[in-house]
Amino acid sequence: MAHNSLCEPEADHERARHLTLDSILTDYNAILDSAISDVLIEAERESQRMGRATLPIYDILRYHLGFKDEHFQDARGDGGKRVRPFLCLLSCAAAGGAVERAVPMAAAIELLHNFTLIHDDIQDRSDLRRHRPTVWNLWGTAQAINAGDAMFAVAHLALARSQRAGVDPATVLALSSMLHQTTLRIVEGQVMDLGFEDRMDVSVDEYMEMIGGKSAAITRCACWAGAAVANADRSATGKLAEFGFSLGVGFQLQDDVLGTEGATIETGKPPADDIVKRKKSLPVLMLLEHADAIDQERVRSLYSSEELTQHEVQQVLDLLTKYEIRSLARERVREWHDRSQRLLETAVPPSNARAELSTLVESLAERTN
Amino acid sequence: MAHNSLCEPEADHERARHLTLDSILTDYNAILDSAISDVLIEAERESQRMGRATLPIYDILRYHLGFKDEHFQDARGDGGKRVRPFLCLLSCAAAGGAVERAVPMAAAIELLHNFTLIHDDIQDRSDLRRHRPTVWNLWGTAQAINAGDAMFAVAHLALARSQRAGVDPATVLALSSMLHQTTLRIVEGQVMDLGFEDRMDVSVDEYMEMIGGKSAAITRCACWAGAAVANADRSATGKLAEFGFSLGVGFQLQDDVLGTEGATIETGKPPADDIVKRKKSLPVLMLLEHADAIDQERVRSLYSSEELTQHEVQQVLDLLTKYEIRSLARERVREWHDRSQRLLETAVPPSNARAELSTLVESLAERTN
Repeated sequence: MAHNSLCEPEADHERARHLTLDSILTDYNAILDSAISDVLIEAERESQRMGRATLPIYDILRYHLGFKDEHFQDARGDGGKRVRPFLCLLSCAAAGGAVERAVPMAAAIELLHNFTLIHDDIQDRSDLRRHRPTVWNLWGTAQAINAGDAMFAVAHLALARSQRAGVDPATVLALSSMLHQTTLRIVEGQVMDLGFEDRMDVSVDEYMEMIGGKSAAITRCACWAGAAVANADRSATGKLAEFGFSLGVGFQLQDDVLGTEGATIETGKPPADDIVKRKKSLPVLMLLEHADAIDQERVRSLYSSEELTQHEVQQVLDLLTKYEIRSLARERVREWHDRSQRLLETAVPPSNARAELSTLVESLAERTN
Repeated sequence: MAHNSLCEPEADHERARHLTLDSILTDYNAILDSAISDVLIEAERESQRMGRATLPIYDILRYHLGFKDEHFQDARGDGGKRVRPFLCLLSCAAAGGAVERAVPMAAAIELLHNFTLIHDDIQDRSDLRRHRPTVWNLWGTAQAINAGDAMFAVAHLALARSQRAGVDPATVLALSSMLHQTTLRIVEGQVMDLGFEDRMDVSVDEYMEMIGGKSAAITRCACWAGAAVANADRSATGKLAEFGFSLGVGFQLQDDVLGTEGATIETGKPPADDIVKRKKSLPVLMLLEHADAIDQERVRSLYSSEELTQHEVQQVLDLLTKYEIRSLARERVREWHDRSQRLLETAVPPSNARAELSTLVESLAERTN
């Protein structure tokens, strides 16, 4: 396993500060790939031998995860940033635990996240995800519901492998319950988010509550779980959880800022995609709170129409500029990342792993995709 | 707890043979109601305080389960037959275990079943379930996906309460993994079933494989789990699992027979609903295997059209009569229930609980709704 020095809090951690995010994450990618591949193989092996005429559901999961192309041939597609499992692994190391024990839970978190993405894409009618057609887009809504449900179950089968990795049964049960609680927070957030679509009176506070569930519950869970696997004390576990929550909020707000900019190549989405889709993300909600009555009315009226023309999208972008919303939003992004850094420093003593987490936070704050 | 005498294998079990199914099941209904209500209250208590404008997702779960009406007022709606949790409780007792230990798992199985129903209703575009509008019909597909996902997580939180009921952590983990494996079998069955819609060459064998996943995996799981909670030996556990599988197959085939008859009042579905919906259920697949070439072609042609007129439905029903398919199908139903009885007798020694399971099997074989 790479980075086994992470478990040594005494190690010189200054070196790690010079690591780039990419170099940190690449090392763990292969470990996660094999953990995820293994559980898919295991799940498929247990399956009834489904007839040849049957849609290969496990290959659809592999497609979504970037392991297969849409013809179910091996591929090396974009499987996403995998920030959540990395948070779990690094939190475990930062709390003094053996990283390899956290691998099953890290894989479970990534799979759980991908279950929510498959269902989200149906709910949002998103055609593309990571530059490729979404599961429902290729195989229809009904089978995409199945794919998401299967991914949910596979996530927990991944977690169940924790015992073999040396985690005691009581801790595995605690991880499992936390993962289910986290799922409820994500679903609650998604329920709120879908409800926002029909409303023009969504406040920034409500929005923050929504992303607390939809986006930050899982990063909170990831860091909490890393600490739990490391048998960290209550205080460190609680602070790492708070750190994860704070980082998840910052991550989402950065997404929101990028969703008002965004070049196709980097984000895999069209420019100003959130505006095009009339999403009530932070910048627009801040605009509605900062603009004068006439401009507010203008935004509300634009957002009430079925579809925005390119010209109308530009009008919203111009209003964001007029009220300097992007820089206000970027301040918020900065605040949440700074908060994360402070929480991290009080949570655990200095170590390579803590330094890498810190590098991760910084890179996420500055990311452009 | 009612029926605590179930744990005494020496008790006079002849008395139980005279019990009706209703009297057996009514006793357990209150216990299950409170187990399910409690876990919903607990899950909701943990939830973020969602704004008033938010759809109350836990009340939607209660609506689906029959505890609330569509305005979220308390109701005593039809929550279904609950055969699956009863199988779990009775299997535990029949294997010599304390029934109360199996209650959390029984509740989990019922909730898991209901998660699959919520998603099935979306996939099948079913308007009604248990005489009431389905979740997607009232709150839309997107929120119904959320409701199913939440029910999935709540099912496992119900299971997690097993520890408090005295089940050791290793057994709880085994139950949890079995529940996830079972979910995969159900999803695989549903994937096959949806695939059948576009095919006119589905064989009876393929159909049996499909219901082995979609319908029989969960009854298998229920009986297996009861035995596991009772710490039954490997042989008894395996045979009870086989018993559950066999009963699940029989249950589905009886559903199929009823789906070609069926009065609205008893089943909550229109008459001959499976034919109206052009479902490739056992009777139609048997018809395709038994009919002469001309009649086969007639059925294929009818099933290829978008919608069947009342007259066309009658044509299919007449063909079922002509080839005596209903009695052939009823023979199969009988065979699977007889097989279940035999498996039950070899699985565990005589007891009140075994007698009640036997009564349950008999009542299911004869049911008309």
